[in-house]
Amino acid sequence: MPRKASTTNAKDMLKIRRVAIDTYHENVAFLHRNCALYRAEGFQALSKVEIQANGTCIYAVLNIVDDDSIVSPNELGLAEQAFDQLGMEPGHLVRIDHSEPPQSMEGVRRKISGERLTLTDFRAITRDITHNRYSKMEMAAFLVANEQSGLDREEIMSLTRAMTETGGRLKWHESLVADKHCIGGIPGNRTTMLIVPIVAAHGLLIPKTSSRAITSPAGTADSMSVLARVDLSPEEMHRVVNKTHACLAWGGNADLAPADDILISVERPLGIDSEGQMIASILSKKLAAGATHLLLDIPIGPSAKVRHMNQALRLRKLFEFVGDRLGLHIEVVISDGSQPIGRGIGPALEARDVMQVLDNDPNAPNDLRQKALYLAGRILEFDPDVRGGRGFHLARDILESGRAAKKMQEIIDAQGEAEQVPLVAPLSIEVIAEKSGFVTAINNYQLARIARLAGAPMSLNAGVDLLKKLGDEVEQGEPLYRIQAEFPADFKFAQNLAEQSNGYRIGKQEEISRHYLET
Amino acid sequence: MPRKASTTNAKDMLKIRRVAIDTYHENVAFLHRNCALYRAEGFQALSKVEIQANGTCIYAVLNIVDDDSIVSPNELGLAEQAFDQLGMEPGHLVRIDHSEPPQSMEGVRRKISGERLTLTDFRAITRDITHNRYSKMEMAAFLVANEQSGLDREEIMSLTRAMTETGGRLKWHESLVADKHCIGGIPGNRTTMLIVPIVAAHGLLIPKTSSRAITSPAGTADSMSVLARVDLSPEEMHRVVNKTHACLAWGGNADLAPADDILISVERPLGIDSEGQMIASILSKKLAAGATHLLLDIPIGPSAKVRHMNQALRLRKLFEFVGDRLGLHIEVVISDGSQPIGRGIGPALEARDVMQVLDNDPNAPNDLRQKALYLAGRILEFDPDVRGGRGFHLARDILESGRAAKKMQEIIDAQGEAEQVPLVAPLSIEVIAEKSGFVTAINNYQLARIARLAGAPMSLNAGVDLLKKLGDEVEQGEPLYRIQAEFPADFKFAQNLAEQSNGYRIGKQEEISRHYLET
Repeated sequence: MPRKASTTNAKDMLKIRRVAIDTYHENVAFLHRNCALYRAEGFQALSKVEIQANGTCIYAVLNIVDDDSIVSPNELGLAEQAFDQLGMEPGHLVRIDHSEPPQSMEGVRRKISGERLTLTDFRAITRDITHNRYSKMEMAAFLVANEQSGLDREEIMSLTRAMTETGGRLKWHESLVADKHCIGGIPGNRTTMLIVPIVAAHGLLIPKTSSRAITSPAGTADSMSVLARVDLSPEEMHRVVNKTHACLAWGGNADLAPADDILISVERPLGIDSEGQMIASILSKKLAAGATHLLLDIPIGPSAKVRHMNQALRLRKLFEFVGDRLGLHIEVVISDGSQPIGRGIGPALEARDVMQVLDNDPNAPNDLRQKALYLAGRILEFDPDVRGGRGFHLARDILESGRAAKKMQEIIDAQGEAEQVPLVAPLSIEVIAEKSGFVTAINNYQLARIARLAGAPMSLNAGVDLLKKLGDEVEQGEPLYRIQAEFPADFKFAQNLAEQSNGYRIGKQEEISRHYLET
Repeated sequence: MPRKASTTNAKDMLKIRRVAIDTYHENVAFLHRNCALYRAEGFQALSKVEIQANGTCIYAVLNIVDDDSIVSPNELGLAEQAFDQLGMEPGHLVRIDHSEPPQSMEGVRRKISGERLTLTDFRAITRDITHNRYSKMEMAAFLVANEQSGLDREEIMSLTRAMTETGGRLKWHESLVADKHCIGGIPGNRTTMLIVPIVAAHGLLIPKTSSRAITSPAGTADSMSVLARVDLSPEEMHRVVNKTHACLAWGGNADLAPADDILISVERPLGIDSEGQMIASILSKKLAAGATHLLLDIPIGPSAKVRHMNQALRLRKLFEFVGDRLGLHIEVVISDGSQPIGRGIGPALEARDVMQVLDNDPNAPNDLRQKALYLAGRILEFDPDVRGGRGFHLARDILESGRAAKKMQEIIDAQGEAEQVPLVAPLSIEVIAEKSGFVTAINNYQLARIARLAGAPMSLNAGVDLLKKLGDEVEQGEPLYRIQAEFPADFKFAQNLAEQSNGYRIGKQEEISRHYLET
């Protein structure tokens, strides 16, 4: 039998070096092709290595380097994520080893063969993903397998639970903690920033954490950042919520279902968006954020994420099934998603719409106001003391009396006011109607993409400002919307796209798409 | 309508810079976080960019860099593959743009939804893969989708044809061009290096191109490289074949079905190995290499790739179906894969076994000799002038008369002799039996992995030398096999694995696994 390998000493080890490359949710290590200790090519084909030091072990995808100025032959380079995860000083000695695929990949392979997975399987998979043990390829395999065989409702529940357990959990010590979510796809749909102050002004607890936009032109956290600091620590969030019954914060500091963020970074570029994965993604975040009651908005429209009523109804049942079993009361509202909500698309433009509604400005976009009141009303009815059907009127009273605006100011003050962003961006152009008629359709996806290319959400005041909405009459040459941008490259990307297709359809009055609104 | 964007000028462009990182079949570009022209984060979430210059356009996955010494804010770094594909001088000006997923991904998404794909779909997908337009994630999605819904036989045929078309095609201007393939999984199975000289000595054309090992301890090209130069250009291959009727070359210079190589680089680390993909992979390479008659060896055994006779039979039908329709005559042999063939596992050790058989050395491993003669005999029977059932005897005559050895020497001379590799590696250890009894099972997978970790095929003389085979009687303390390695790190990896499990089962005589051999 072979003798036990001699104990490790310094000459068997490589010095780590931080390589300032941001590899975005994937651990990457860099080994010199002429590494003094390890045969680079032998490692490369299997593509992943285990890196060990002081009992810590991380996994990384390996790239071979031919330039001593990036790493020298006695060093191991670690990209930013991997370096931070290992958490050691540059020059620290490490050993590398051949990495087997993470054990939980066996579950992924069973899913590929069409088997059902159990809570134990999903726990192992999401734990390994959270610890950066999966390469992007392996995550893609997991996501495609889930999409293709589909997850049944028990599996969605198990995945939701497993994802929730990958991070921390906020505790609010209240029996009713309200939350709100929209499954997305509708630009300008900034109802959350209205619902939160209305609901909190009534006295319910609504500690709202949101994400920043990943592929859309603005998330709630992006728009709110125009008005207040949003990158609160969990302690700051508690302080703000204790004071105001609410917050409108970015969730990224609270370690909420981190496996979800990592999976999303693969899902989006692949354009995969399976129902099961989406439900688990949304509900794991809400459970981790400590919600007890959730109002879920599912917009339907020809260019929304959900296009047909039967799909919306199936989703509703699935959400209810999982919510009921994991202790989250869910009410679903199916809403009109046939066009963008409000006028602005982009962080500052959307914040402007919100403030107009809060200020009872007669010029405020009415669709945003009505939708926010309807949804806020439904949340107010979670309160046992509010009579069924009275929520909308109650919400309207709170808004019209100025109590919502006052509550918003309290939240802004508690979170810390943001530096003012000029609403006018340095570059702008109006996109005009090529013929006269009625606006019969607006493509949500196309408008979102134009706003995104114009620089939103990175440039806070970039985006699109809609001047005509569905059903409006337009003359040839009249402007349909304005594109605004901060940087010339972005401006050109957005203009090029609008030129290919401006996202508006002009036609006869009778061709205007009909709505599906539940209200 | 927006005005046409102004024509490009130098200040809208980035200078390219070669970043000496080998990203192995994936194009990667590096953008500085504070890039003067483009908003790095905006690009990052979608992860892929289009890079354009002088009408050329390549696609790359984007990494963000925080270090000016890797790329400065007015540069775009390109990893080695991407730089080579773009084919421009450092400092050349390029524009970057947001990349949509390659259009053919739409087909991948249809496959994910369970649809059948057509030849047109597979052509678009394999063309995009060949042009490095797919990220590894996207390739993983394609492979998992194929594995999960499975490819029917028409789809396998379309994929085979599409992969064949991604590269060049060798032409031999003969009506009978023989080839041989083993679907693998059996270490030491070096019959090709015996079959080729036997068949060529008889006068048939057998221009053999092989791959180097990717995750196995040796491919035919690795073992042959111990004896002769193998990295022949297509012109050199023709010269050698004209002279000797054969060659034993590495196929990597001939651009044979390049999409296959790229897909394999994702498939292997994922541990996905679907039947359809495997058939298309093998047959596209053979068609591109210009074969007309193929003998296919499918070994069966408890630790072989194929474990059951019914699986082998299904594979045989699929191979025959695709071969018949694409003009390749295929005969399948189902062979015993219950243990490694011959004694050596690793390039030099396997070459030694081969030369012992060719030299009619009484000490030559008999299983390797018998298997090679059987397979060579089957190929000889492709010759219309050879009577059915006479092939084996004919092959044995050619071997025993020394004509095979002479032909091998001609091939080596024509390809160019290799520098001699010492057969003894600097580091070696014997793995001994822990108890007395009979060898009742040898795990192919474990032995291959130990040889691989010992450094094979990169270290030509690294590997495993088997001293006991299935059915042999052993005494406690007697050596089972020898591990040999060139580098201490490799030596330790291999020892550690052998210590965990040495791959041998010692038991009673009646427990020896039974064979499935067709002969």
